[in-house]
Amino acid sequence: FNKVKSAHDAWSGWVCVLFVGVAAGVCAGIIDIGTSWMSDLKEGICLEAFWLNREQCCWSGNATTFDEDGGCNQWYSWAKLFGVQSSEGGAYIVKYLLYIVWALIFGSIAALFVRVFAPYACGSGIPEIKTILSGFIIRGYLGKWTLLVKSVGMMLAVAAGLSLGKEGPFVHVACCCGNIFSYLFPKYGRNEAKKREILSAASAAGVSVAFGAPIGGVLFSLEEVSYYFPLKTLWRSFFCALMAAFVLRSINPFGNDHLVMFYIDYNEPWYIQELIPFIFLGLLGGLYGSFFIKFNIKWCKYRKTSSLGKYPIIEVLIVVFITALLSFPNDYTRMNGSELIRLLVQRCGPEDNTDLCDYKRNFTNPYPYTESVTIGDGVKRALWKLMLALLFKALITIFTFGIKVPCGLFIPSMTVGAIMGRMVGIGVEQLVVLYPNSPLFSNMCQSQQTCTVTPGIYAMVGAAAALGGVTRMTVSLVVIMFELTGGIQFIVPMMVAAMTSKWIGDALGREGIYDAHIGLNGYPYLDSKEEFTHTTIAADVMRPRCWRYGLEVRNDPPLSVLTQDSMTIDEIESILKSTEHNGFPVVVSPESQYLVGFVLRRDLNLAITNALKNQEGIVSNSLVVFINQSTPNLNGPQSLKLRKILDLAPITITDHTPMETVVEMFRKLGLRQTLVTHNGRLLGIITKKDVLRHVAHIQNQDPDNILFN
Amino acid sequence: FNKVKSAHDAWSGWVCVLFVGVAAGVCAGIIDIGTSWMSDLKEGICLEAFWLNREQCCWSGNATTFDEDGGCNQWYSWAKLFGVQSSEGGAYIVKYLLYIVWALIFGSIAALFVRVFAPYACGSGIPEIKTILSGFIIRGYLGKWTLLVKSVGMMLAVAAGLSLGKEGPFVHVACCCGNIFSYLFPKYGRNEAKKREILSAASAAGVSVAFGAPIGGVLFSLEEVSYYFPLKTLWRSFFCALMAAFVLRSINPFGNDHLVMFYIDYNEPWYIQELIPFIFLGLLGGLYGSFFIKFNIKWCKYRKTSSLGKYPIIEVLIVVFITALLSFPNDYTRMNGSELIRLLVQRCGPEDNTDLCDYKRNFTNPYPYTESVTIGDGVKRALWKLMLALLFKALITIFTFGIKVPCGLFIPSMTVGAIMGRMVGIGVEQLVVLYPNSPLFSNMCQSQQTCTVTPGIYAMVGAAAALGGVTRMTVSLVVIMFELTGGIQFIVPMMVAAMTSKWIGDALGREGIYDAHIGLNGYPYLDSKEEFTHTTIAADVMRPRCWRYGLEVRNDPPLSVLTQDSMTIDEIESILKSTEHNGFPVVVSPESQYLVGFVLRRDLNLAITNALKNQEGIVSNSLVVFINQSTPNLNGPQSLKLRKILDLAPITITDHTPMETVVEMFRKLGLRQTLVTHNGRLLGIITKKDVLRHVAHIQNQDPDNILFN
Repeated sequence: FNKVKSAHDAWSGWVCVLFVGVAAGVCAGIIDIGTSWMSDLKEGICLEAFWLNREQCCWSGNATTFDEDGGCNQWYSWAKLFGVQSSEGGAYIVKYLLYIVWALIFGSIAALFVRVFAPYACGSGIPEIKTILSGFIIRGYLGKWTLLVKSVGMMLAVAAGLSLGKEGPFVHVACCCGNIFSYLFPKYGRNEAKKREILSAASAAGVSVAFGAPIGGVLFSLEEVSYYFPLKTLWRSFFCALMAAFVLRSINPFGNDHLVMFYIDYNEPWYIQELIPFIFLGLLGGLYGSFFIKFNIKWCKYRKTSSLGKYPIIEVLIVVFITALLSFPNDYTRMNGSELIRLLVQRCGPEDNTDLCDYKRNFTNPYPYTESVTIGDGVKRALWKLMLALLFKALITIFTFGIKVPCGLFIPSMTVGAIMGRMVGIGVEQLVVLYPNSPLFSNMCQSQQTCTVTPGIYAMVGAAAALGGVTRMTVSLVVIMFELTGGIQFIVPMMVAAMTSKWIGDALGREGIYDAHIGLNGYPYLDSKEEFTHTTIAADVMRPRCWRYGLEVRNDPPLSVLTQDSMTIDEIESILKSTEHNGFPVVVSPESQYLVGFVLRRDLNLAITNALKNQEGIVSNSLVVFINQSTPNLNGPQSLKLRKILDLAPITITDHTPMETVVEMFRKLGLRQTLVTHNGRLLGIITKKDVLRHVAHIQNQDPDNILFN
Repeated sequence: FNKVKSAHDAWSGWVCVLFVGVAAGVCAGIIDIGTSWMSDLKEGICLEAFWLNREQCCWSGNATTFDEDGGCNQWYSWAKLFGVQSSEGGAYIVKYLLYIVWALIFGSIAALFVRVFAPYACGSGIPEIKTILSGFIIRGYLGKWTLLVKSVGMMLAVAAGLSLGKEGPFVHVACCCGNIFSYLFPKYGRNEAKKREILSAASAAGVSVAFGAPIGGVLFSLEEVSYYFPLKTLWRSFFCALMAAFVLRSINPFGNDHLVMFYIDYNEPWYIQELIPFIFLGLLGGLYGSFFIKFNIKWCKYRKTSSLGKYPIIEVLIVVFITALLSFPNDYTRMNGSELIRLLVQRCGPEDNTDLCDYKRNFTNPYPYTESVTIGDGVKRALWKLMLALLFKALITIFTFGIKVPCGLFIPSMTVGAIMGRMVGIGVEQLVVLYPNSPLFSNMCQSQQTCTVTPGIYAMVGAAAALGGVTRMTVSLVVIMFELTGGIQFIVPMMVAAMTSKWIGDALGREGIYDAHIGLNGYPYLDSKEEFTHTTIAADVMRPRCWRYGLEVRNDPPLSVLTQDSMTIDEIESILKSTEHNGFPVVVSPESQYLVGFVLRRDLNLAITNALKNQEGIVSNSLVVFINQSTPNLNGPQSLKLRKILDLAPITITDHTPMETVVEMFRKLGLRQTLVTHNGRLLGIITKKDVLRHVAHIQNQDPDNILFN
């Protein structure tokens, strides 16, 4: 029988993650298609079938020629539709205006949706999911309304051209799916701890569909999101992530068969001395990350405290307007983030005649496109534009992340990094072209005239560095980047950059953006990654804190305890009224204080109310008895037996336990409180809040900043 | 100051794993080169430079022509050296004899080395490393002698042609490097818990160099080897694994630049209905795994209990002789395991004219090598030979794994799986060729005559399934296979096979081969992966077990306790003599039994001996006082104050704590014992041994089988 039961148990978990994976894949497919259609709607429309985006529209017409807007016969840009010739200056103005108008429309709809239907749908959701997985419950955060509004809001927000990505919110969407499907299986729906296993798997699936990176997704869930990751969920998470990626690829929202998002189609080598610019990129990424986190948190704090926070929709509209106004004139900001990254990580092949690929090539060479040559005027123009795009993106993202629409950080951070990387790459390339005889570059040049430096690699490494600086991810970052680009040979450069970026970032500011936002919002999150070493002991942290001499003695109220068999219902009810604790220790007698157990306020309230209502002979001066072997109270009223609601196995520690051990117990055993004893006598209590305050205190933070809202 | 200290701390960890990674890479390179040279020595010698293997020998002579033995002018097979014409029957006999003689020489040297210098160097080492990482200390297991003997022994054992691999022992070698280098850094060398972090990273590096799979190595360490894997070691493990792979690739022992060991050079698709044979392969793999584990454990038990165990060298020689005798006549068993796998996962290209590729091709087709056609006689011959090789490998590995030479299981298991897979693949291929019009196969055939089934994919999937069945790895298996073959598009088939294989295996026998060997050797290993659900409470498991009525009461001796201030040195010494416990609880008084703390036997012995020797006024009837505020004993001799050696913060639980919670505490907090109290009074003690016995008991195993040797 046990075997059947455990087989059924295991089976239900697998079916649940299968459903979650499929659902996450389907959601991602719908969102990808919707985003692409709406983004194109800003520039034009497919007259024959308005529900097609530009690419599909041109396919359906079997068009093989594209006009200068990248359109075709069936695709009408707004200027063309309004009868303005595309060569005239008026056409540009019409396009510009309609671009801004559409952006404002999309932005306002997104903000309204979030405001009216599901306020939890804003932001990236990863800080909250981290908090939820650490054991805190936020009701409705993973509900079906949040799922719906977040999905639609993501499409609208990306289509509005804001500097945000839809990749982070995919994690939230997948977790919503996880939460919803877990209710189909009582084992998972009814048990919060079990449900968190499903949510871990779901967040892996979220990253998996965001980047087509199932292994990276599992590692992301393990490293960044999950608080406690039991090994048996590793396999399920992988299954979930793989199913999600498989379903998304079957839906094939982008209409191409690339397994990877930013496919690297070249196999150029990198040289050992290129590690120096890669480390430099890591440095830039780390600096950018700390800069971003610092100012974003400042701005979010300002929003919270000033009157700006009262007008979220107006804030969104202002950001949308400024973004649209400034991004339209520059090609590199007008295209969306992932397109720009794809452009920047490519090398210049024979088919590319864009500004970025305007090199003075020598076509008499056998491989004209792999070697490095002098840049032409086009690349200089492109560099200026990229510089402007970099400044714009780096600044506007600070104000964008945190507005009340769904917004992710992955793509904007990677964009900033990729631009930096490409620029550094072109710089290194030109340096090598100028000094091909320098001993520094000797192994990079086969003969004097043919040296190979691929700026696309630098863009990729830069993207990894910037993302690492912002999120402080490590292994998962490298694996995601490798799955994103398919460039297994560039794993060492990416790791070097990610490592430098993390070290620089950690030196300048302790936390990644997600932890910073957790701190900003005051979620009760006990970081499991930081090493906690200090010399305080449990007696210094517990409440009431009055017994250890020589230390500051606070005016704590005495501990509210119950006795096992000598308190009346009246006395207990007055304690319940006068305090707000979630539970009470039960001791043998007020004098001895020997600990018997722990009882929850909820259970106590319920039991007393029920007994007074339904049980004969129980009156307000009945004794409450928490133990079994009590001699019947003959001369008083009948006593109320509450043996069943008493937890006889509370976790206890002694007053001399080092806080290091206490924090470890809280983290690993998922405690909410622990009782402190000395020689068996109850001395006090340490709750999770006390631990969080203490950790904040020794990290020189203001403990009262932890809002616990 | 704190910042500097923590920076130095972090820095030393990074430097240490860097050293470990480089050392693991160098060791792996040396072992790979040595193995290849010795393996070739069995068949011939390079006369001009005996230290070169066949491939290098032929390079150095700039030979472009190879004779039928795959040799060249400079390379002399033994038959050629002894002047026997290679076409004669005598040549075959000379080769056969010398093959067996060399195998016996290598085998006996390996066995002697292990026996004389380092008995710990035998076996794969992974079960022991798992046990060490769970907190058990085996002195000398990771020492420099073990490292040296294991490295040399591995080369010899593989060169002897035994059915074993050098991939598993790489983990042991890397861990030896980790252990040796950790002594350079006091932070890691002196602290066993910290050292285990280095060992986790080292085992990742071991798998990384074994398969060129850094990500798979980290996941292997996480999933299979490490007991407790804190997240901050994840990044270091990855760094270590990557450095090791990088160094090995720079050494380039195989002389080719392939990143991956079994490179898949094709990009054929797989079809959804092929999942059925893949699941079938998973089934076969799971069956083979359970079969192997069952009979290998039986044989190992027989070796332990019978007189066979007394003659390890003779056993090795017998196994070597049988293996050499039977494997020489069959091409597929004469080549070593990894060569065979490489052959089986390839597709038949234009350059292959081996038996396995003898198809009746239609060269008028545009792609004569991608489509499936009828097999020729060569393939039929090859199938018979493969069948014999499968039987031989499957049986001999049972007797090989466990003999007293270094031996790994990865390659033999994968060989068996790859043979099964290739055979199933050829079967499916011929089925499709026979019935191209069947609706089952319609999407696999473009036109009626050109269908695509690639038997190499089946070999790869079969290898994953068999390895999964034997080791019960999951995510790490799939990632290693994907890094081994580079075939990211086959990740779904491999996962399906690995999953089926694990389920089948788990249904037939609970444990993987490593856990089974841990059980066989009686190591105190508390499995952290299994879910423990039972209704027993701490009172049922603790010793002495006498208070709960209605349960079997054992005749346990009463608990040995010390009192805080009323026992003399004499009394304590008699307790120390009459018991063998590692530590003693200290209580307020024998009557009250209120718990004060816990004192270790080691500390107590040392303190008393020192005091009696060096401290004035301490005699054998002095009182021993464990607390601070004792009133001085005026009329007796001076009392001995042992406040310092008393652990005032022992972990305690109440007698009603469910054993589920207790086991969780032991696992997560790494406890060795916990004290059981009731209302503050000491009732008993639960040690790790008690927990292990209890777990074995409820799994219906004989608890006394746990030998704790």
